[in-house]
Amino acid sequence: MASVNIAFSPVGGKVKVRKGTNVLNAAIEGGVALRAECGGNGVCGKCRVIVQNGDAIGEPAEAERKHFSPRELRSGYRLACQTFPKQDITVLIPKETRIGERRILTRGTEKQTALNPMVKKFHVKLDEPSLSDVRPDFERLLEALSDSHKLTGLTIDCDILRKLPDILRDAGWDVTVAVWNNARIVAVEAGDTGSKLFGFAVDIGTSKVVGHLVDLTIGKTLSTGYIENPQLPYGADIVTRIAFAMENEANRQTLRKAVVEGISKVLRQACAKAKVDVHQVYEAVLVGNTAMHHLCLGIQPKYTALSPYVPAIKSSLHLRAKELEVEMNSNGVCSFLPIIAGFVGADAVADVIATGFYELKKTSMLIDIGTNTEVFVGNFKDIATCSCASGPAFEGARIKHGMKAETGAIESVHLEPDFEVGFKTIGNAKPKGLCGSAMIDLVAEMFKLEIIDSKGKINPRVKTRRLKKAGKQTEFTVAWADETATGKEIVITQRDIGEIQLAKAAIFAGCSLLMKTKNLERQDLAKILIAGNFGNYINPQNAKLLGLVPDVPTERIEFVGNTAVEGAKMALISKETRKTAEQLSKEIRYLELAATPDFSREFAQALFIPHKDMNRFPLVNKELADRGRTAKDTHNS
Amino acid sequence: MASVNIAFSPVGGKVKVRKGTNVLNAAIEGGVALRAECGGNGVCGKCRVIVQNGDAIGEPAEAERKHFSPRELRSGYRLACQTFPKQDITVLIPKETRIGERRILTRGTEKQTALNPMVKKFHVKLDEPSLSDVRPDFERLLEALSDSHKLTGLTIDCDILRKLPDILRDAGWDVTVAVWNNARIVAVEAGDTGSKLFGFAVDIGTSKVVGHLVDLTIGKTLSTGYIENPQLPYGADIVTRIAFAMENEANRQTLRKAVVEGISKVLRQACAKAKVDVHQVYEAVLVGNTAMHHLCLGIQPKYTALSPYVPAIKSSLHLRAKELEVEMNSNGVCSFLPIIAGFVGADAVADVIATGFYELKKTSMLIDIGTNTEVFVGNFKDIATCSCASGPAFEGARIKHGMKAETGAIESVHLEPDFEVGFKTIGNAKPKGLCGSAMIDLVAEMFKLEIIDSKGKINPRVKTRRLKKAGKQTEFTVAWADETATGKEIVITQRDIGEIQLAKAAIFAGCSLLMKTKNLERQDLAKILIAGNFGNYINPQNAKLLGLVPDVPTERIEFVGNTAVEGAKMALISKETRKTAEQLSKEIRYLELAATPDFSREFAQALFIPHKDMNRFPLVNKELADRGRTAKDTHNS
Repeated sequence: MASVNIAFSPVGGKVKVRKGTNVLNAAIEGGVALRAECGGNGVCGKCRVIVQNGDAIGEPAEAERKHFSPRELRSGYRLACQTFPKQDITVLIPKETRIGERRILTRGTEKQTALNPMVKKFHVKLDEPSLSDVRPDFERLLEALSDSHKLTGLTIDCDILRKLPDILRDAGWDVTVAVWNNARIVAVEAGDTGSKLFGFAVDIGTSKVVGHLVDLTIGKTLSTGYIENPQLPYGADIVTRIAFAMENEANRQTLRKAVVEGISKVLRQACAKAKVDVHQVYEAVLVGNTAMHHLCLGIQPKYTALSPYVPAIKSSLHLRAKELEVEMNSNGVCSFLPIIAGFVGADAVADVIATGFYELKKTSMLIDIGTNTEVFVGNFKDIATCSCASGPAFEGARIKHGMKAETGAIESVHLEPDFEVGFKTIGNAKPKGLCGSAMIDLVAEMFKLEIIDSKGKINPRVKTRRLKKAGKQTEFTVAWADETATGKEIVITQRDIGEIQLAKAAIFAGCSLLMKTKNLERQDLAKILIAGNFGNYINPQNAKLLGLVPDVPTERIEFVGNTAVEGAKMALISKETRKTAEQLSKEIRYLELAATPDFSREFAQALFIPHKDMNRFPLVNKELADRGRTAKDTHNS
Repeated sequence: MASVNIAFSPVGGKVKVRKGTNVLNAAIEGGVALRAECGGNGVCGKCRVIVQNGDAIGEPAEAERKHFSPRELRSGYRLACQTFPKQDITVLIPKETRIGERRILTRGTEKQTALNPMVKKFHVKLDEPSLSDVRPDFERLLEALSDSHKLTGLTIDCDILRKLPDILRDAGWDVTVAVWNNARIVAVEAGDTGSKLFGFAVDIGTSKVVGHLVDLTIGKTLSTGYIENPQLPYGADIVTRIAFAMENEANRQTLRKAVVEGISKVLRQACAKAKVDVHQVYEAVLVGNTAMHHLCLGIQPKYTALSPYVPAIKSSLHLRAKELEVEMNSNGVCSFLPIIAGFVGADAVADVIATGFYELKKTSMLIDIGTNTEVFVGNFKDIATCSCASGPAFEGARIKHGMKAETGAIESVHLEPDFEVGFKTIGNAKPKGLCGSAMIDLVAEMFKLEIIDSKGKINPRVKTRRLKKAGKQTEFTVAWADETATGKEIVITQRDIGEIQLAKAAIFAGCSLLMKTKNLERQDLAKILIAGNFGNYINPQNAKLLGLVPDVPTERIEFVGNTAVEGAKMALISKETRKTAEQLSKEIRYLELAATPDFSREFAQALFIPHKDMNRFPLVNKELADRGRTAKDTHNS
């Protein structure tokens, strides 16, 4: 079949695909992460790319005319999901379309995950029984599997056994057997179905459930799906849901069923797109934070939320799909990756795997920012972790005009010396509010321009039309009413700044105490990887200036996006990665900040911008000095 | 607590029990098998015993006055279930109350089954979690089990995990864990429940489901239960049920649910009697013929009934109770013992175990007579088996006045030289019909008195009022109308005799061909053990005379009753026995009679009484000669 080569610029990566494949799927296949929130249906308008050779792609589609101005279209702007290259092309990926950097760049080694899934298929032909060969069906099958494929000691579930006699005879004794972990038969199918072997990687986020349907014969994503977490009506945040679940068993069942049905829905979505039969999905690997893990399994989550925050289990779990009630092959396996602690879940383990953090030669830090922020410090020899109660500020909650990193969120902000504001929104839509990355920019830039002091207090002497009193609060206007989608101003208030200080102080205190347990100084960190869902990228300079992360040279800070589902996928396609996850869950040392006496002092110091002790931020200090501002100034202002 | 000693005569056996225990339960505890079809409720009147020391037992109960005449009561007749000894006593067990001989007598060695059940309980106290010890609940439990009991690598089902956090805290971190096979946690209970560890042994017969509730801490039966197989409405015989099951999946589910609910019912019965919580029954061991095994599991049974008669599986199966839907501890295990072939089921494996056949030093034969009759030949080194399609004649079907071995069945018959008839019924009730053992007696005795010839043909020249024509059939009156419960004569017809010849010929041909594969002569058989449900005992002399079994000295023939449930019980209390069963299932060689060319000739010869070739029945021949009748006579008559 005819194929075309597609190169991606400037992120790198090249992929050869069948002609007729759209650029979005080509990017997925090539491991290039593009934004595509509608899953490739031309609806969200997120997968914006630039193709300069118009001949290679033809006229814009209907959906593209909706999302682009004529000028943009003339410049070669297209939606990746609507673009079907007829010749080899190079596709430019603008910054707004990229999901962080390519994961592989952050891995310590360039080693690819070797394809070795837990589920494999084996084709066998059996001798037909006769009066001189009356071996029972199951034993006949086992012996054939042993003779042809050296498999021994396999078990079978009763519900497959029930149908086995008919399956074998209807198939004329020519069948394909799906086997999990070389140990358990999960399906017996007529004929040779070896090419139909699928798996599903899922990140059960508090807000979203995201899944990748993976062809396990080649280890590639075929399609993706996602939905809002169906538990949302029972609580936007995890604490509310846990409180609901604590009430009684019925509530726990309600939450369990909601999310499990959600997982099935995402799987159906992805299977429909790739024209795959859900019953040929034999394994799902699931990750999520500890609370989501417990709620999805129907485990009493109460004690993860009360001191000493103890989960019910940390080891990985392998359930039959029928047991978990996920709609896939019913004898297939749903595997939950292991967790580390009450607030360091399987999603964090997946981060460590996806980023290759555990293979890094040089000591580094990984921070996954969310309502709870997980921090890892270490290298291939030894890793320690802690969880920081950073709160939902970076996800938009408790912030006057805060919002999640969705279309219309302002995701980056720049302040001019005259206090005028430049900003960029997700999807280049009219702004609706501020997501996490914008808040980091705002507070850092306001501090840089001395609109706020190191205590975060707005300086009333600054003269700008953007500062005003609203009731007792002072607020700073980010976008004027006529610029926004809501027709109302978007502001950041004095209280918002306080919330951000609380959040960043919790995170920095965690980083700091964790480094202390390993006797590390900021200079010792070869890299700081930042993961999270607060926007498409973080301005590393501003993250440091805010005092969110330790003060390392800017180029050492990398934003890796949301890597949990990638980690799940890597575990799905590789037994070895599964073992690594189990080992990491056992070996990574967990530091309970609540039991750390220094915590309060560290936290209090970190409330300052960037920090009370400017000796810990020499690089920032130098930069401020270059701007004619000193640490002393800031502390005395 | 006060206790009394009870001795059983003439069967032997002595047991010390708590005062207040009735004689039936004492007998069960002592391993003495008494008939007690109502399960000890004073209803069936079967557990007749004789106690000569009236002081030790007091006045007869209401139920006993119903079942005995005043003369019997004065002779010391009592119902074992209604008799509560106040002092040490000896209880005489009349023949009609005994169920065969005590199993132990037939075992090759006197070795008792060592108590070592698959399910065990472990009491542990855990450290309470704290901020300095945040091990998750499951791992905390595992570590305690490993520290205190050297258990490692245990798994847990999700539904136990769901409740684990609450169980541990409600129990104040002091729990007892039930573990199956040192591998899987089946229950976590508050406090020390080590003394409450129960199992259930079940024989799923085509007609009856019989169960023993066993205290697994001591390996003794606490109570028993039984019901008619609830599949009976779908077919009295197994072939009808298989035909029904073959039609569709819904029918298979109907049969599966019927018998599974039956098993639960028997368990509830037994638990109620012994005041045991069904949820503290952690394992059930089930046996049954291959068809019942498949039907109970919901496996398509079609191909076990069609040539080449191949079952779906022979290995033992371990299901969770919730999967099989038996009402016991839902995470407990239902273990099916392995089967050997399409017509040699787990019940036959249980027979081999219960009789200790596999340990016999000297080569012997075991015959379990039923609609299908299984024959085993061999010794501790090597066993071969075959299945004979003997049909249901010995269970009363296709016989004009045939019936199962139930109250009112004539179970033994003696003919006087003047053709007058002496008989004994089960329960000494008025006769209702003939069960298998009576038919054996009748045909043998009729042959002995030359009422029939060696072809089974009734000799019309015999002069007795008991012989008459009814239509075209000649029949022999066994009981006159005024003697019977029905008010009608009980007869055996020429056609009945033919049915019995067919049945016995099938069995003898099987015995014969099986011996041939091992080059054995009748003299080589040190023992012939006969098991089955056709009455309470077989007259060995008559069994030989009929030509049912090879011609060995009479004292070598032993009737062992229905031993399948005993075998299940031995497997239940012993891991080693479980292994033995699995090994036997693999090692016992199965001879497919349908594939044996000699079968037709062997069968045709065996249709004669006792056999066409009298050289194979020299002992019988001599006996006949002593009566003045020669083989030649018989064959020429």
